[in-house]
Amino acid sequence: MSDPGQTRADYAYFQPMTTRWMDNDAYQHINNAVYYSFFDTVANNFLIEHGALDIGKSAVVGFIVASSCSYRKPIAYPAKLDAAFRVNRIGTSSVEYGVAVFEENVTEPAAFGTYTHVFVERESGKSVSIPEKIRSALELARVTG
Amino acid sequence: MSDPGQTRADYAYFQPMTTRWMDNDAYQHINNAVYYSFFDTVANNFLIEHGALDIGKSAVVGFIVASSCSYRKPIAYPAKLDAAFRVNRIGTSSVEYGVAVFEENVTEPAAFGTYTHVFVERESGKSVSIPEKIRSALELARVTG
Amino acid sequence: MSDPGQTRADYAYFQPMTTRWMDNDAYQHINNAVYYSFFDTVANNFLIEHGALDIGKSAVVGFIVASSCSYRKPIAYPAKLDAAFRVNRIGTSSVEYGVAVFEENVTEPAAFGTYTHVFVERESGKSVSIPEKIRSALELARVTG
Amino acid sequence: MSDPGQTRADYAYFQPMTTRWMDNDAYQHINNAVYYSFFDTVANNFLIEHGALDIGKSAVVGFIVASSCSYRKPIAYPAKLDAAFRVNRIGTSSVEYGVAVFEENVTEPAAFGTYTHVFVERESGKSVSIPEKIRSALELARVTG
Repeated sequence: MSDPGQTRADYAYFQPMTTRWMDNDAYQHINNAVYYSFFDTVANNFLIEHGALDIGKSAVVGFIVASSCSYRKPIAYPAKLDAAFRVNRIGTSSVEYGVAVFEENVTEPAAFGTYTHVFVERESGKSVSIPEKIRSALELARVTG
Repeated sequence: MSDPGQTRADYAYFQPMTTRWMDNDAYQHINNAVYYSFFDTVANNFLIEHGALDIGKSAVVGFIVASSCSYRKPIAYPAKLDAAFRVNRIGTSSVEYGVAVFEENVTEPAAFGTYTHVFVERESGKSVSIPEKIRSALELARVTG
Repeated sequence: MSDPGQTRADYAYFQPMTTRWMDNDAYQHINNAVYYSFFDTVANNFLIEHGALDIGKSAVVGFIVASSCSYRKPIAYPAKLDAAFRVNRIGTSSVEYGVAVFEENVTEPAAFGTYTHVFVERESGKSVSIPEKIRSALELARVTG
Repeated sequence: MSDPGQTRADYAYFQPMTTRWMDNDAYQHINNAVYYSFFDTVANNFLIEHGALDIGKSAVVGFIVASSCSYRKPIAYPAKLDAAFRVNRIGTSSVEYGVAVFEENVTEPAAFGTYTHVFVERESGKSVSIPEKIRSALELARVTG
């Protein structure tokens, strides 16, 4: 990917995220795993807000098959954050998101990465073509290079 | 409760629990909230092992309505722990558990507390009389004073 | 305690808290242990904002020795929450907080409980009289019945 | 990387990990972020056991600058897991680990990925050449293709 998401302008959707005392680990920074929790929260927030996901009822849901993160600057509770989201690529049954975490009022991300959802039938776990309602929502967050 | 669960002999069921790097918070001890994760894990482990809970299928499940913990001694990752479980009281639709965390090979608990489950229909969330299969499992862990 | 903290008016300090996808457990509600993470976050937020705690530097810090929670109504991600805080009792070296979680725009708490901090020297872990700077901050959140 | 760590034989070090009730998210599988918690636990377990890390005292510690995971098969609490670890590459101040999670008695990983530690002075956060004691420990887990 030629554009790794280095500024706020590279993203389509933002959500504020509050940090928690226990997010800081023994090195007094937010633990690396917690970033993925910000990432899947902003992705699901986007889907829910755009009518593409009902957590309890949707017959088709996104399962994560791959994720990655580059950590650029340590951050620590009680920081206030903005999680950022965009769609990098849409395939037949999968989509790659670009995700990032910014400190409030900071332009460069503290961390950024990717998430890949494969859409599956919730009951069977089998992959399916992305339903049109979800696809059209995802198109709204597509950022073209 | 006259017997607050001060030794291993006060409990009916034990499960080893591994700790995780991120369990330690900024003070380099296992965060207070993580103990409750040990507690509900040992309680659910007991129910699952005794045929009283199928996470995905049981029509009746336990919802937690109250919990408490007394912390006696700080512990830290990479400690190996034993979580302990017993039944304090069984009512019509609810049960109070006694729960504790011990460091491996240590007799006094690092922390101990209580958990109260109300059994509800999963779909409606309405409380029900404890089904016989669950009640008979719980009786196995009842510790009488 | 005659007043268990049943309305927003019972609390002295509030902080918005965002929820996360992974807060929901297999029953699709916010897991019981996560509430304690809201509780210690609002308590530490209060201390930090009032100059009573520097996470990395304070020589005297609060260790939790007891906690409890009553859960009144299940809540689920993506709910937006307000965590609430007050001081119930101040002793020589310890303080009991009243804490609660409210859904946005809801008057009754989804859950409420208590947290007891003992103040200790960070290095030795030995309890100390509550330093004057901390005590005067705590007095600001004391709610009298 | 030509060898993505597809079997237990690809790893040098294993640690059993217990799962927790709250690891399962609303889809009743272990949440994607939790895998990273297994990963940094097994990496730090290796360093601690080989005398390369004292969490509270080491002057040089590893900060994570990149991580990735491929998820192959959903797993769920109450699964018992083995976390696996190896060293992929050692540089001047950084090291890339290969990490994986296997279900007990299963040969193929449920998930596998990479973790990159940069070694820094704890106080300043500045990167340093990997100290000899740490480097010689890491060499023990190097798996050559």
